[in-house]
Amino acid sequence: MKQGIEVFITGGTFDKEYNELNGNLYFKETHLHEMLDLGRSKLDLSIQTLMMKDSLDFVYADRALIAKACNESVQDRILITHGTDTMTITAEYLLEQCKNKTIVLTGAMVPYKFGSSDGLFNLGSALAFVQVLEAGVYIAMNGKIFEAGKVKKNTDKGEFEDLL
Amino acid sequence: MKQGIEVFITGGTFDKEYNELNGNLYFKETHLHEMLDLGRSKLDLSIQTLMMKDSLDFVYADRALIAKACNESVQDRILITHGTDTMTITAEYLLEQCKNKTIVLTGAMVPYKFGSSDGLFNLGSALAFVQVLEAGVYIAMNGKIFEAGKVKKNTDKGEFEDLL
Amino acid sequence: MKQGIEVFITGGTFDKEYNELNGNLYFKETHLHEMLDLGRSKLDLSIQTLMMKDSLDFVYADRALIAKACNESVQDRILITHGTDTMTITAEYLLEQCKNKTIVLTGAMVPYKFGSSDGLFNLGSALAFVQVLEAGVYIAMNGKIFEAGKVKKNTDKGEFEDLL
Amino acid sequence: MKQGIEVFITGGTFDKEYNELNGNLYFKETHLHEMLDLGRSKLDLSIQTLMMKDSLDFVYADRALIAKACNESVQDRILITHGTDTMTITAEYLLEQCKNKTIVLTGAMVPYKFGSSDGLFNLGSALAFVQVLEAGVYIAMNGKIFEAGKVKKNTDKGEFEDLL
Repeated sequence: MKQGIEVFITGGTFDKEYNELNGNLYFKETHLHEMLDLGRSKLDLSIQTLMMKDSLDFVYADRALIAKACNESVQDRILITHGTDTMTITAEYLLEQCKNKTIVLTGAMVPYKFGSSDGLFNLGSALAFVQVLEAGVYIAMNGKIFEAGKVKKNTDKGEFEDLL
Repeated sequence: MKQGIEVFITGGTFDKEYNELNGNLYFKETHLHEMLDLGRSKLDLSIQTLMMKDSLDFVYADRALIAKACNESVQDRILITHGTDTMTITAEYLLEQCKNKTIVLTGAMVPYKFGSSDGLFNLGSALAFVQVLEAGVYIAMNGKIFEAGKVKKNTDKGEFEDLL
Repeated sequence: MKQGIEVFITGGTFDKEYNELNGNLYFKETHLHEMLDLGRSKLDLSIQTLMMKDSLDFVYADRALIAKACNESVQDRILITHGTDTMTITAEYLLEQCKNKTIVLTGAMVPYKFGSSDGLFNLGSALAFVQVLEAGVYIAMNGKIFEAGKVKKNTDKGEFEDLL
Repeated sequence: MKQGIEVFITGGTFDKEYNELNGNLYFKETHLHEMLDLGRSKLDLSIQTLMMKDSLDFVYADRALIAKACNESVQDRILITHGTDTMTITAEYLLEQCKNKTIVLTGAMVPYKFGSSDGLFNLGSALAFVQVLEAGVYIAMNGKIFEAGKVKKNTDKGEFEDLL
């Protein structure tokens, strides 16, 4: 728990904003620093934005880039913010590609900038899990921790659950 | 990670509200359920309010009551919301009194009902830690986890840090 | 200033919400009552939802319905919440159709449920203007009051300004 | 409605903040600029902080200073943010001291920085009233406008009402 944590930002609902000129949702900058300030986080974090994309728009090259970044990181503990729609796909891919690292993916159902976001709660839980879990790839959502390959997003309920 | 978690509410800044009639801060009801809804928590939690007090007003009987509740709980994993001012004292007391349980205390520097609260972040991290740490008594604040007896609140900075 | 005020809700950004299941913006119920509670409004208001539509989707029949409602109201002072995109068009139509009433239209650039909404500010100003202005049709946005037929929305800046 | 508006800040609940180190409420800087940005105000305002005080702590010299500032202002339309506890006293004093100006006092029951503040609503309404009312001294609270000398704060209900 003494070492640093690498944080990779990839976009997702977490970081979406409302464009008041045209009413669309879009990406500007990450809100992660603001969220960490709000949480009074004193963790030793190295934060890097890899991309700002809706995870429905992810192509193979995006996931390859994330895996490469994880493998090349000097840290063994890595947090990834990610859209929830294809989070399980990226998690499974990283499970194949990245060994001997504790990788936790998290995201939000509602943008952080909107009043009713789960983002700060998820960020708190993901940062906790990434500090204490053994090597592996995980998803932290709904206060729970799921192992890559054993979790699906229930799109009707908008929550993550164990694969039967 | 499959079992339930006991949550004991004891008050603290977390749950303080602003009385618009006289400008004082006071306790009404806990905001924990509202916070868990906001976080879209799907954890199996049993929640009980033991008291609603500023932790500066805690007397021996309050801590004895908390220890008793921990020991009598059917759960081995217990989260306690607590004022930050004497959180380390309660943690040390529980370390003596409660064995074989994973107990995590958390709180907030700013009331949840105020815009700039760290409460939701702390709650997310505390609920994550309590699921995965081995038996012991811990404090989850500032994104970090501290062991009871090895942590102090730095009142100048308003943050928790390791005892040297 | 002693008489009651009729409030007609027609939708607009004001009342849009974020659907966390599909990431779209949509209408559920109006937030006007919640906003009035937040503002501690003690005004004597009669509130009615005429429709819940994006004002870009308004057709002639919608505006005719609003004009009819204004004319049939027992009140001489009427507030209308309305999408900003075609607010000036509705205002000009009401100017033709409704005489001897003080009608103020207002809206928001950002949904009320999002953290950064101008909705509460606009509602406060519109309710003030509607109490004191003489008969006519007005738009209350950006803290200002504009007369119907003499105002346009500057869509590049996202603000209302006087027609030259 | 074309001329500028003078805004004098005097403190009050409006601008109180929570000191997370000691749990007290205190004044740092005014939030008025931030509130005007949030409201997308495009009004021509000249803003000056006269003092940052709880209105219960006002002494005669404070009110004399406010009256002097109103009389010396080049503007005929003046908004004053003020604590609610003695707002009616200041209003009556200004009624004696300041002639031929439209002066509107407003405030908040809950600090702007707290989630549930009425501040933005009150600010919107006060800025509207100050633009259109004839010379006189007024209080804008609860969506209503009251004349100085004819209003009292009902401290049980936390709202302003007409003197019988």
